[in-house]
Amino acid sequence: MALVPHNFDLPFNIIRCSHVEYAVTDLDESHKFYVDILGLIETERTENTIYLRGLEEQQHHSYILKKAEEPSVLAVGFKVAFEKDLDALKTHLDSINVDTEWVSKYAEDRTLRVVSPQGFILEFYARMKKVPQKLREYKAYQGMHPQRFDHFNVFTPNAQETYEFFVSQLGFRLTEYSTTEKGEMWAAWMHRKGNVHDMALTNGDGPRLHHSAIWVPTALNIIHLLDVMSTTGYVNNIERGPGRHGVSNAFFLYILDPDGHRIEIYTCDYLTVDPDLEPLGWDLRDPQRQTLWGAPAPRSWFENGSTFINTKVKKATMKARPIIAD
Amino acid sequence: MALVPHNFDLPFNIIRCSHVEYAVTDLDESHKFYVDILGLIETERTENTIYLRGLEEQQHHSYILKKAEEPSVLAVGFKVAFEKDLDALKTHLDSINVDTEWVSKYAEDRTLRVVSPQGFILEFYARMKKVPQKLREYKAYQGMHPQRFDHFNVFTPNAQETYEFFVSQLGFRLTEYSTTEKGEMWAAWMHRKGNVHDMALTNGDGPRLHHSAIWVPTALNIIHLLDVMSTTGYVNNIERGPGRHGVSNAFFLYILDPDGHRIEIYTCDYLTVDPDLEPLGWDLRDPQRQTLWGAPAPRSWFENGSTFINTKVKKATMKARPIIAD
Amino acid sequence: MALVPHNFDLPFNIIRCSHVEYAVTDLDESHKFYVDILGLIETERTENTIYLRGLEEQQHHSYILKKAEEPSVLAVGFKVAFEKDLDALKTHLDSINVDTEWVSKYAEDRTLRVVSPQGFILEFYARMKKVPQKLREYKAYQGMHPQRFDHFNVFTPNAQETYEFFVSQLGFRLTEYSTTEKGEMWAAWMHRKGNVHDMALTNGDGPRLHHSAIWVPTALNIIHLLDVMSTTGYVNNIERGPGRHGVSNAFFLYILDPDGHRIEIYTCDYLTVDPDLEPLGWDLRDPQRQTLWGAPAPRSWFENGSTFINTKVKKATMKARPIIAD
Amino acid sequence: MALVPHNFDLPFNIIRCSHVEYAVTDLDESHKFYVDILGLIETERTENTIYLRGLEEQQHHSYILKKAEEPSVLAVGFKVAFEKDLDALKTHLDSINVDTEWVSKYAEDRTLRVVSPQGFILEFYARMKKVPQKLREYKAYQGMHPQRFDHFNVFTPNAQETYEFFVSQLGFRLTEYSTTEKGEMWAAWMHRKGNVHDMALTNGDGPRLHHSAIWVPTALNIIHLLDVMSTTGYVNNIERGPGRHGVSNAFFLYILDPDGHRIEIYTCDYLTVDPDLEPLGWDLRDPQRQTLWGAPAPRSWFENGSTFINTKVKKATMKARPIIAD
Repeated sequence: MALVPHNFDLPFNIIRCSHVEYAVTDLDESHKFYVDILGLIETERTENTIYLRGLEEQQHHSYILKKAEEPSVLAVGFKVAFEKDLDALKTHLDSINVDTEWVSKYAEDRTLRVVSPQGFILEFYARMKKVPQKLREYKAYQGMHPQRFDHFNVFTPNAQETYEFFVSQLGFRLTEYSTTEKGEMWAAWMHRKGNVHDMALTNGDGPRLHHSAIWVPTALNIIHLLDVMSTTGYVNNIERGPGRHGVSNAFFLYILDPDGHRIEIYTCDYLTVDPDLEPLGWDLRDPQRQTLWGAPAPRSWFENGSTFINTKVKKATMKARPIIAD
Repeated sequence: MALVPHNFDLPFNIIRCSHVEYAVTDLDESHKFYVDILGLIETERTENTIYLRGLEEQQHHSYILKKAEEPSVLAVGFKVAFEKDLDALKTHLDSINVDTEWVSKYAEDRTLRVVSPQGFILEFYARMKKVPQKLREYKAYQGMHPQRFDHFNVFTPNAQETYEFFVSQLGFRLTEYSTTEKGEMWAAWMHRKGNVHDMALTNGDGPRLHHSAIWVPTALNIIHLLDVMSTTGYVNNIERGPGRHGVSNAFFLYILDPDGHRIEIYTCDYLTVDPDLEPLGWDLRDPQRQTLWGAPAPRSWFENGSTFINTKVKKATMKARPIIAD
Repeated sequence: MALVPHNFDLPFNIIRCSHVEYAVTDLDESHKFYVDILGLIETERTENTIYLRGLEEQQHHSYILKKAEEPSVLAVGFKVAFEKDLDALKTHLDSINVDTEWVSKYAEDRTLRVVSPQGFILEFYARMKKVPQKLREYKAYQGMHPQRFDHFNVFTPNAQETYEFFVSQLGFRLTEYSTTEKGEMWAAWMHRKGNVHDMALTNGDGPRLHHSAIWVPTALNIIHLLDVMSTTGYVNNIERGPGRHGVSNAFFLYILDPDGHRIEIYTCDYLTVDPDLEPLGWDLRDPQRQTLWGAPAPRSWFENGSTFINTKVKKATMKARPIIAD
Repeated sequence: MALVPHNFDLPFNIIRCSHVEYAVTDLDESHKFYVDILGLIETERTENTIYLRGLEEQQHHSYILKKAEEPSVLAVGFKVAFEKDLDALKTHLDSINVDTEWVSKYAEDRTLRVVSPQGFILEFYARMKKVPQKLREYKAYQGMHPQRFDHFNVFTPNAQETYEFFVSQLGFRLTEYSTTEKGEMWAAWMHRKGNVHDMALTNGDGPRLHHSAIWVPTALNIIHLLDVMSTTGYVNNIERGPGRHGVSNAFFLYILDPDGHRIEIYTCDYLTVDPDLEPLGWDLRDPQRQTLWGAPAPRSWFENGSTFINTKVKKATMKARPIIAD
């Protein structure tokens, strides 16, 4: 492994991660989970699709749930600064032979769909339809008081390559990373918006989505969510946590939606806007890397993930193993 | 002033304060305030009455709201240990010429109504109809997550006499008190259930009810209530706080219901079950007595209160004045 | 199993649990753990003993740590209302042939030592030396902001008998309990002071102390303690949690002191002062009984405990097993 | 008033506000306040200067306290992305006749000092000496658990001009603003780092510094600080709050250091990285603008501020007045 330099000279500006589009098998079940339990705001519902957002979000949606036969990930979305950044991004990716395509998405002006060399389906846009922010409508605060979309985490069998693609070709900045004792890159946290990550990667069979994450105000919102899930039939959807991550120092909880898509509830990391912020490296076998308090993650957390639609999954081949609770 | 000894030898056992019965002028407005905003559970609603309770309460109600032309307090309620305690209480009060009367109350087996020498309408019962506790139904937690009824506070022009009546004749135990520089009793906090108070008294025109209080889990529940009230048209119902009381050390907020009945939202005091707990005395002019952080209460807080029905109010005559914010 | 009636007619009044006396092997290590990490107040330290208390406690100590070759429990302490209650308690226990003895304890006026039929060493006192309460000295709030002693939990191979002794002979009141599918009493929570418990018992090899518990204001204090322990060399002293108990509904954490004595950090249960409070029964195999959120306790939590000094431990023989995380 | 367009084409990149340099009259008193009470980390202390930082900060300091005869503000500091940004910034400011000067500052590689046309002393640097982050050393968390520097707020008699200078010439982005009923710009909140502000301005006698602000994790940290200040002799240093701002939606507290420099303790605003975020306008007379919960700020909050050293203060002339609590 080698850390590659950050690339501050790209001709486009990806502002932040923005949303995820999930295929789900039962819209009513999804609505119950995301709206009634988690407290996300439903912006709009059509026959086949539910659009959701967090309390402070002024964008039309950060979650799209589309009815399908099988669960999958249809795309993960990012916002760029201006329309011209889309063109510059396309030019750049074309020049390095990455697949790009203009697609039409509801509520976005123009959307550039990119399939990364590792197989991730990424969508970029500059302008999404705006809707009123609920930040000051406290009566609308339900469930865990979800504030905003925070990040993605993906499984990839090519951690070093994936890391390099996001840093060198898309301008992401590394904040923390885990390496095996041989020094191989095993997991990486990379940001655009100025906190620990917009996108993280973990070694594993991939390309798959490990989880999407939602920011909440305090740990007490997470504790309340646990209490609610435990007493409304969702106790088996609690997969891991609550706990404090060593990596990122955030307070976390991992839960599964009715289709098994993993959601992280996340709060409390730190400001990373400085270009000279030194990335923090962790030993993969450090037990406090995963959870500062020592409890290892369950096997499912390292193995299960959501596949991208129509995307073949390759086996991870790295031999190093994290500490697993079993 | 003189502190009187606690009376541990009374032949009856008042367990705790239990509920308040308010006359209100508009049941729909009251419902909106107590249920939609505060989050109390509606146990039952009849044409003229709403019965409410907190999340952990197994008793039928801790708030009774009765439709009337004018707002007033119909009674404040206390629970005794057993039916025999009611009889012993009656015998005792009869022996000291205090007015008592058996009355019939919905949801209580037997009720002894007492008008204290100071004019307070007190009702005592041993058994109230039970209903399921919502403590483990977290989906029902709304508003400020109201847990349980905590205490009353009354205005009285006869602070020393009122204090003595509750301590010597009813067995309440003094935990904290305020005195004027002349040494007169000005305010007193007295308990039965083992926290700072079930009943407090404040010098003022009386008999009147200063407030009833509801216990919530943490200060963050109070902050959320403030945010909700401020954005649903209730900003003018916020009277005082949030703050930390010097007296009781509790975190507090005072709000007004649609009829002007004052409600305290209260959390965090301390355990007082020891019979040898030394009452803590405060100087009325100590600015941290009211609010540890220094902010004095507004004039309205010292002057406004709810009258007991059909009860003449006498002027307070004590000359000493607390520190008032104006 | 049969529930026995509460005994409201005993001629003495046990107010609450009060303190525990641990034999520990290294006073400096114990000081570091209890004072520097947990934040308890050191009232006094002699050559061989440390006396500690919580922030709101006005009694001289709630933890006594005594230097010894081997860790053990020297006694668990309870407060009675008055000196005369000690005499009445002695008379009562003598009459049912329970071992009692007047012993001399530092900081207590008179102390009645009782060895319960099950072998628990219980000490009762009415008056302990008082010291200033730190409740309003917020600069002294350190670690987890420990407020007060909350309860004990003991292992006993005779759950039904132990339960009956505490309820029938000492006047404790049952709030919650767990039974096997055969209907045997497996665990019981019993109180005197008006919250869920002063004393709980769990089936297991005994007599042993399962844990002593300290009350803290909110779940965030527990999360902070976890963060501190994890970064000061105490990560392996975290045994279980944090979580929400089904039983008691409290938010909890279990940690081990340097000698392996288990401490529960506890917050948020409910008021139980009503004599007609209905005990809540749980099925031992209900996974939410232990932890509402579903995670079972580790084997160590069901097996390890502190022995009472010079007390032989008997094997538990009940066949029913709780759900264990392994 | 007119909103001016954001300027996305400047040839330099100011990353964020970074630190403030205060002249103080008694270093020991300042140390007591900032370190013992607030909990800031002392990085270094020389004979005449104390350097402080927050728990997550890796930069040498965010507060410089310099011994002087009179309190004043020596400078407010900002970080730019790279050394080349300093040169580009100087070239730009020279071209519009703004005073700039290279100065030598302890712990910074190169520092460009700028006196804005309004008289504010601004210092820009790209690289400051790094020190270890305390984020994961929870034992070092004291006082209010200060995480990081958040923002400045200045008084200016030229609100529109000041706003235009920061937006058009320095690239700040407006997030919220208040206008008089005549439509004059009265206050503005502008950011670089992606939350509500790095720099705000308020109409008033100026140039002066209204306050500097520190980010803490939750409202409970602020409540604890209030409790500590109230019981350690600092009750009169509490000026305003706690409360929820309408503007920014943050939970706040304003306190005064021993020299009267105002510090805001701040938590919970929202993400503002989108270039198309619509600025939110407020009416100066909207009582919820200042405090969502309705309580107006005291007169001192609108009148008192810290002067920049050797800088003449001009009177504010705008006639419009906010709502003041007196």
